[in-house]
Amino acid sequence: MAPQLDGYFKQVDKLSESFIERLRKAVAIPSVSADDERRPDVVKMSEFLVSELTALGAHVESRPLGLQPGKKDLHLPPVIVARYGSSPNKRTILLYGHYDVQPALKDDGWATEPFTLTVDDKGRMYGRGSTDDKGPVLGWLNAIQAHKEAGVELPVNLLMCFEGMEEYGSEGLDDFIEKEATPGGFFEKADAVCISDNYWLGTEKPCLTYGLRGCNYYSVSISGPGQDLHSGIFGGCAQEPMTDLVRVLGKLVDTDGKIQIPGINEMVAPVTAEEKSLYGDISYTMDNLYESLGSKTGIFPDKEKTLMARWRYPSLSVHGVEGAFSAPGAKTVIPAKVVGKFSIRTVPDMESEKVDSHVFKYVKDEFAKLGSKNTIDIRLIHAGNWWVASPKHWNYTAAGRAVEKVFGVKPDLTREGGSIPVTLTFEKATGKNVLLLPMGSSTDAAHSINEKLDRRNYIEGTKLLGAYLHYVAEEEMKA
Amino acid sequence: MAPQLDGYFKQVDKLSESFIERLRKAVAIPSVSADDERRPDVVKMSEFLVSELTALGAHVESRPLGLQPGKKDLHLPPVIVARYGSSPNKRTILLYGHYDVQPALKDDGWATEPFTLTVDDKGRMYGRGSTDDKGPVLGWLNAIQAHKEAGVELPVNLLMCFEGMEEYGSEGLDDFIEKEATPGGFFEKADAVCISDNYWLGTEKPCLTYGLRGCNYYSVSISGPGQDLHSGIFGGCAQEPMTDLVRVLGKLVDTDGKIQIPGINEMVAPVTAEEKSLYGDISYTMDNLYESLGSKTGIFPDKEKTLMARWRYPSLSVHGVEGAFSAPGAKTVIPAKVVGKFSIRTVPDMESEKVDSHVFKYVKDEFAKLGSKNTIDIRLIHAGNWWVASPKHWNYTAAGRAVEKVFGVKPDLTREGGSIPVTLTFEKATGKNVLLLPMGSSTDAAHSINEKLDRRNYIEGTKLLGAYLHYVAEEEMKA
Ligand SMILES: [Zn+2]
Ligand SMILES: [Zn+2]
Ligand SMILES: [Zn+2]
Ligand SMILES: [Zn+2]
Repeated sequence: MAPQLDGYFKQVDKLSESFIERLRKAVAIPSVSADDERRPDVVKMSEFLVSELTALGAHVESRPLGLQPGKKDLHLPPVIVARYGSSPNKRTILLYGHYDVQPALKDDGWATEPFTLTVDDKGRMYGRGSTDDKGPVLGWLNAIQAHKEAGVELPVNLLMCFEGMEEYGSEGLDDFIEKEATPGGFFEKADAVCISDNYWLGTEKPCLTYGLRGCNYYSVSISGPGQDLHSGIFGGCAQEPMTDLVRVLGKLVDTDGKIQIPGINEMVAPVTAEEKSLYGDISYTMDNLYESLGSKTGIFPDKEKTLMARWRYPSLSVHGVEGAFSAPGAKTVIPAKVVGKFSIRTVPDMESEKVDSHVFKYVKDEFAKLGSKNTIDIRLIHAGNWWVASPKHWNYTAAGRAVEKVFGVKPDLTREGGSIPVTLTFEKATGKNVLLLPMGSSTDAAHSINEKLDRRNYIEGTKLLGAYLHYVAEEEMKA
Repeated sequence: MAPQLDGYFKQVDKLSESFIERLRKAVAIPSVSADDERRPDVVKMSEFLVSELTALGAHVESRPLGLQPGKKDLHLPPVIVARYGSSPNKRTILLYGHYDVQPALKDDGWATEPFTLTVDDKGRMYGRGSTDDKGPVLGWLNAIQAHKEAGVELPVNLLMCFEGMEEYGSEGLDDFIEKEATPGGFFEKADAVCISDNYWLGTEKPCLTYGLRGCNYYSVSISGPGQDLHSGIFGGCAQEPMTDLVRVLGKLVDTDGKIQIPGINEMVAPVTAEEKSLYGDISYTMDNLYESLGSKTGIFPDKEKTLMARWRYPSLSVHGVEGAFSAPGAKTVIPAKVVGKFSIRTVPDMESEKVDSHVFKYVKDEFAKLGSKNTIDIRLIHAGNWWVASPKHWNYTAAGRAVEKVFGVKPDLTREGGSIPVTLTFEKATGKNVLLLPMGSSTDAAHSINEKLDRRNYIEGTKLLGAYLHYVAEEEMKA
C-alpha cells in the first residue's frame, strides 16, 4: 500500500522557515576543513549537529579521529554518528553527509558574505555549504523533526555518519567506516546506504546516481640542471626539462579527448543495449552542456555521446605543471625540474594497476624517443576506483517512487564523471547497496563562489528524503 | 708611453680594508627595487652614493624619475648622475651601474644574513648586491679615492649614471638617458661608455664583453570554457585548452634546442672565419659548463659549439604555463584558460618584427592543425634587441691592456646570451662605443642565494677600473 505522507509533507511546509533558520545557523559556522585556523569552527559545527540531533531524540556520539597526519598538535574533527530508532522489525538505513565546507572569502568574488545565508527573491539561498553539504545533512534532521511534530512514525531505523574532513580528503574516515561496519560496530545493522552529496543533472528533474568514474592521478617529473637556469645565459646549450615535458604531455590525448596511450581504451566495457536505453530518457540537452561549460567547445554533437563521455568512458586531462614559471608576466627562467600533472578518469572494466603500467610504459617510451639526457620519473599520486551500482535494487526503486511522489516525475538515472570515494568505502565495508540521492541542482556552484541551494530543492528535498524512507520500508515488505 | 700606475695600485692595496668597509655599508642597505615597502631603503642607498661621491669631490645630482607607473603614490628611486673632472683636453668616459638589488631573505636558503657582508677565510664576501651591482659601482668610487689619495691625476673626465630600478626593468631610465645624451644634456660630452654589470666567463680570467643576445618574449593563450571545470564532471566531453597548449608548445623546439619555427634559423648571420678565430682562445671547458649547469645535460660535446650556442645562435625556451594547476599535490582541474610563456633569444641579423611574424604564423598554423574549437591568442610580451660592438674599438683595446697590466693575461673576448637592455640604450642615445667590463666572476651567484664577490675581484677589479681609464687616455692620444 502507498505510504501516507500527507501529514509529513504538510508539516515540512509548516516548518520550512525554521528549516531555513537551521541552515542559516549552520552556514554561519565557517567550518572550513582545509584551513588549520578554522579547525575550531569545524569542531563547533560538529557540536551544532550533536545538539540538534540530541534535541530530536537521537542517540548521538562524537567520535575523535586523532591527530591530523602531517600536522603538529592538530586534531581531526570528530565523526558524528547517530542512531534514530532501533526496532528489530524495521530496515536500517545508513545516511552519510559532511559538515565541513570548502574555503570561501568575500574577496574571491562572492556577491554576498559567504558565511551569511542570503535568500534572494527567487528563493536562491546563497552561502558556503548551503548545497555542499550542510543543506542535505540538515535535510535528514528536518525530516526527523517533521515526522516527530506531525506524529508520523518513521518506518525505518536511521544510522547517521556525518564527517568533518570531506573537503580535505576524508582523512581517517575509511578506517573508521570499516571498523564500525564490522560485527559490534555502530554501522553493523545497516541494510542500505544513502548519500546525499551530489547534484541533479539539471535544475528541474531530480536524479538517482548509480555510477561514478574512478581517477588515477599521475605526476611526470623531468629534471636536468642542478638549479634553475637563466635562459639568456644557458638557452641553446642545455637540454631543457620543460621542452621535453611539453613534448611528452602533448602525446597523451588529442584535442577530441581520444587517449593516445595504447591499452587504455581497450579495457573499457562495451555498451550494452540495456545500458544504452537508459540514456535516451535523460533530461539533458546540448544547450545544458554549453551553459555549464560557458562555451560551445564540446567534443560531441549529441546528448548520448556527451553523457557517455562524461560517465562511462575514460578521459585524460592535463592539469598543469609544477616547477615552471606560472605567474603573470614574463620571467626568463629555464626551470631545472618540472612536474606535469595529469589524470585518467577510469570506468568499468579498467583495472587500476593495468592502467598504471600502460601509462608508465607509454610515457617512458615517448620520452625515450626524444633522445634526452634529462631524467624522467613518472608516478601515480593517487588512485580511486570507479563504482557502479544496480539501479534495479530496492534502494533505488524506493527512491525512484519517492521522487515521483514529491516531484511528479520519474528521476533521471545518472552516473557521474567524478569520484566520491566514500561511496566505494561504504559499499565495501557494509556489503550493501549504496544510493546517491542528491538534493541540490546543477547550478548550485558547489566549490565555487556564490554557492547556493534553491529553497525548493531544500524544502521539497526534505520531503523527498522522508518519503524515500517510507518507500524503502514498503519495498522491504514486498521483498 | 705606458701609464704610471704603481702609485695608484699601492694606494688601492693600502685602502683595501676601507673599500670593503664601504661595500659593507652599501650591502647593509636592503635596496630591493622590486619590493614597494623597501623603496625607502632604495632611496637611502641613493643618498649613500650622493654622500660618498660628494665627499670625493664629484659634482652630484639626484634626479627624480617621477611616480612609478601602475602604482599609487610610489615614487621611482632617483638616478644619481655625477661628474668628476671636466677638462676639455681629456676624454670623457660615461660609467653606468645600478644601486638596487634583487630581493633576498635568509629563509630563501642563505647561509649568512643576506644584508650583512660576511667575509670568509677564502676572501669570499657574501651579501646581496656584493657583485650585482654594488661592488662594481663602488669600484669606481674606490678608483677615484685611490687616485686622490695617491696624488695621481685621473687622465679622463668621468660621467656617472647610477640607477635604482635595474632589477625591476629600469623603469623610466631609457627616456632619461636619451634626453641627457642630447646637446646640453648631462651625458652630452661622453666619448665612450663603460658598464660594469656582468661577469667573467670563469673564475680566473677577466673578460671584455662585446655582444649580447636580444629576447623576444611571447605568450600564447588558449581558452575554451567560461570557467575552470572539474575533470571528473567534464573530462571527455569538452575540448581542453591545456591539451591544445602542450601540443602547440611541443612543436616549438626539439630536445637539442633546434627551433622548429620556419624562417628563424634562416635569419642568423653566418659565422665568419674571423669570428670563429675568437672562440679558440677562450678559457672555457665542458667541465665549466657542467659545473654551472649542475648536470651533464649539455647539448654539444665541445667548447666552441657550446659557446656559440649561448652567444651567437638563437635559442627558444618554454618558461611555463600561467592559469594551469602549478602547486604541489593533485588538483583535478580543467583550466579554462592557459597561457604558455616562451621566448626566443635573438642574434644578428634577426629582425624582431620578422621573428614575431614567423612565430605568430607557425603557432597559429600548428593550432589550426589540431582542429580545436578553443580560441588561441599569441602575442609578444616584450622584445629587446641583440647588441654587438666592435672589440677592435679603442674602448676595448684600452680595457684589454688594463687587464693585461693588472691580471697578467689577455682577457677573453666574450659575448653573452642574456640581454642588458641599457647597453643598447646607451649605444643608441650617445652613438658611442659601449664596453662591458665585468668585475665579478662566474661563481658569484647574482640573483641567487649566497651572492658573493671575491675580495680579489673587488680589489684587483678596482685597480682594473682605474687602469682602464689610464689606457683609455693613452689610446686617445694615439688616435
Ligand atoms: Zn560534498
Ligand atoms: Zn564538496
Ligand atoms: Zn646587475
Ligand atoms: Zn641583477
